[in-house]
Amino acid sequence: MSELKGALIIGQSGGPSSVINSSAYGVIRAGLDNPNITKVYGAEYGIKGVLADRLFVMDEEDPKELALLQYTPSSALGSCRYKMKDPDVDDTDYKRILEVFKKHDVRYFFYNGGNDSMDTCNKISKYMQKVGYECRVMGVPKTIDNDLFGTDHCPGFASAAKYIATSCMEVSLDASVYDTGMVCVIEIMGRHAGWLAGAAALATAHGAGPDLVYLPEVDFDMDKFLADVERIYKEKGSCMVAVSEGIHYADGSFVSEAKTSATDGFGHAQLGGLAAMLADVIKQRTGAKVRGIELSLLQRCGAHLASKTDIDEAYMSGREAVEQAVAGVTDKMVALDCSREGGRYTCKPMLLDLTAVANYEKKVPVEWINAEGNGVTQAFIDYCLPLIQGEPDLPKEDSLPRFARLKKVLAD
Amino acid sequence: MSELKGALIIGQSGGPSSVINSSAYGVIRAGLDNPNITKVYGAEYGIKGVLADRLFVMDEEDPKELALLQYTPSSALGSCRYKMKDPDVDDTDYKRILEVFKKHDVRYFFYNGGNDSMDTCNKISKYMQKVGYECRVMGVPKTIDNDLFGTDHCPGFASAAKYIATSCMEVSLDASVYDTGMVCVIEIMGRHAGWLAGAAALATAHGAGPDLVYLPEVDFDMDKFLADVERIYKEKGSCMVAVSEGIHYADGSFVSEAKTSATDGFGHAQLGGLAAMLADVIKQRTGAKVRGIELSLLQRCGAHLASKTDIDEAYMSGREAVEQAVAGVTDKMVALDCSREGGRYTCKPMLLDLTAVANYEKKVPVEWINAEGNGVTQAFIDYCLPLIQGEPDLPKEDSLPRFARLKKVLAD
Repeated sequence: MSELKGALIIGQSGGPSSVINSSAYGVIRAGLDNPNITKVYGAEYGIKGVLADRLFVMDEEDPKELALLQYTPSSALGSCRYKMKDPDVDDTDYKRILEVFKKHDVRYFFYNGGNDSMDTCNKISKYMQKVGYECRVMGVPKTIDNDLFGTDHCPGFASAAKYIATSCMEVSLDASVYDTGMVCVIEIMGRHAGWLAGAAALATAHGAGPDLVYLPEVDFDMDKFLADVERIYKEKGSCMVAVSEGIHYADGSFVSEAKTSATDGFGHAQLGGLAAMLADVIKQRTGAKVRGIELSLLQRCGAHLASKTDIDEAYMSGREAVEQAVAGVTDKMVALDCSREGGRYTCKPMLLDLTAVANYEKKVPVEWINAEGNGVTQAFIDYCLPLIQGEPDLPKEDSLPRFARLKKVLAD
Repeated sequence: MSELKGALIIGQSGGPSSVINSSAYGVIRAGLDNPNITKVYGAEYGIKGVLADRLFVMDEEDPKELALLQYTPSSALGSCRYKMKDPDVDDTDYKRILEVFKKHDVRYFFYNGGNDSMDTCNKISKYMQKVGYECRVMGVPKTIDNDLFGTDHCPGFASAAKYIATSCMEVSLDASVYDTGMVCVIEIMGRHAGWLAGAAALATAHGAGPDLVYLPEVDFDMDKFLADVERIYKEKGSCMVAVSEGIHYADGSFVSEAKTSATDGFGHAQLGGLAAMLADVIKQRTGAKVRGIELSLLQRCGAHLASKTDIDEAYMSGREAVEQAVAGVTDKMVALDCSREGGRYTCKPMLLDLTAVANYEKKVPVEWINAEGNGVTQAFIDYCLPLIQGEPDLPKEDSLPRFARLKKVLAD
């Protein structure tokens, strides 16, 4: 182990979650506690804040407010969707990052995000190695989509899953309240991986939830879908459906895509309006009363339903990243190594090469999807259920959430 | 006081809420506890269950499951939107109700609902008086819309308000996470009264919430709305807007009405899709990234965020109705008589004539809406805040809600 003293930067990237701030707090707290870390900076809007030299001095914050980050959703430092260019083609951004790192004597860089963010992290890590600037670079995983490669699951997923399952249980009771019946379609996030849509089945496994669940891992067939819905509506007098925003036909085109053509900064299609569209198709086919509900941003910022397990694992991931880096590790992402042997859940951190993680997407295994392609198996439930356990003791003020209030003092 | 022995029926009507089952539990528990009540029936799907002679025997239920009704959203007995005819024009339904009452020796009838349901309750009460059948009829208030006349507020409102305020706080953090900015429009229930939309301002008063709030009590002006949004978006780089589903132009036409023309059983227009429509208009005007979020059913069944005050008052309303009826009272609705004197909130039950309550709608007072018509005043906040206080100890199973599971044994 080689000792390295210097400042630390933590940046948050990509879509936020209910617990990404808990990961940031793990990094910040461990950084403030560690004698080798001379200063702890939070980058405003992820890597954009490094490029703009807008760094918040975390040492200036009230420790009690920092601790509230564990229960504060969204990215408290600000986030970005910024695609780094290939440094062999254009190294402008990398030179600028190096300049800012040198200016503030930054020797530790932590980037908290999903696939695209790990790509950013990996590129920066490799560039710093190439130019010989000693800086330990670590990825801290985050994504409600749960699609990061090599880790049992991603911090952020479980809290979103718990929000989805709880909301589906509640809506399931509401949507079946009249004898006139209803078909209710719930649209859930997840572009290419159906982890979140599958989590809706936790509700059903607990007595009230969707009858049908459609994941993007299975090609969508509108005729079969309508036949499924019609059959259940006739049998039960009502039907509840959960669909991933990313369901697509066999040719790869999104079912929702006629609705919108906007794209986000990474070039992904921005999806939405699918629930309303499917509800309308069902209404035309069955004549049923319908309702489409899009869980939208609510599902990824619903910190009031966060899993304590998730909060704690997010914190641990951040803390572990700092401790490993100070011990000499670099160019890795912290991952979660879990066991569910004998019904007992354990989770410990492990390390993965950034190169191995960047840009890969982990999908729901085919064997966890039922043969009809309209639901998940017990194995999926057994995988998810331990992750959503535990109720955090949420700080409240007047019975409303008391979120962290940071001063955000800029470094000069 | 005249002593009256006989069976009791409780029916639930109209759109459900997070705490209507707590009111039902108040009625059921008080009924089961009272020696003058010979049997406690729950009508399936409200008055429809009486007409169909489908009555669940509450005496057969496990008391522990009944107690869970306090934390179970939606209407556990089933609900209806059934408009009773004027008995002078067509008394078919009334004759049938009398027949069912006589068959089961029903001497106590409790109807749990909003304006339309109090109309049903009132008509039944007056009919029974006219034909000389001794039956004590009481209304138990419920509506998330908070528009019942004569009561400080309605059970159900506060829990929906708490859900809305909490969700707005969370979304407010999420929707401002990128430096690219966003305009976010949240659509909130409330056809003619803006109580729920106004509750979004509780979030703002607690540090994170909508910049603009539009209530149906004020005529909507699209040009002024767009100017408001554009001004704030330019100032802050983002803007969050809360709108009532019922906002309308000066001529009375709903802003949303171009989107749908379906009507519910009472002849109300079914609204929805307003958030998406306004987001689109804003996008065209400002070029901003936009997102429309409809809180939809989530806001009225979000029992995981229920106010303990609301749960307790709902229970008290149901219990009070039974105790008053047994003591000889009839033809009344239980209302809430509250004081906020000196910052101390107290609430006690009072009684209102059913005739005075039925069909009237209580709107947000004009003096509680700001001069610009795009927000509420501190008086509105002071009114709402005591109602959302308190966290119930929610029963959970595997960290998901444990809702009541009733056997629903039908009377023969």
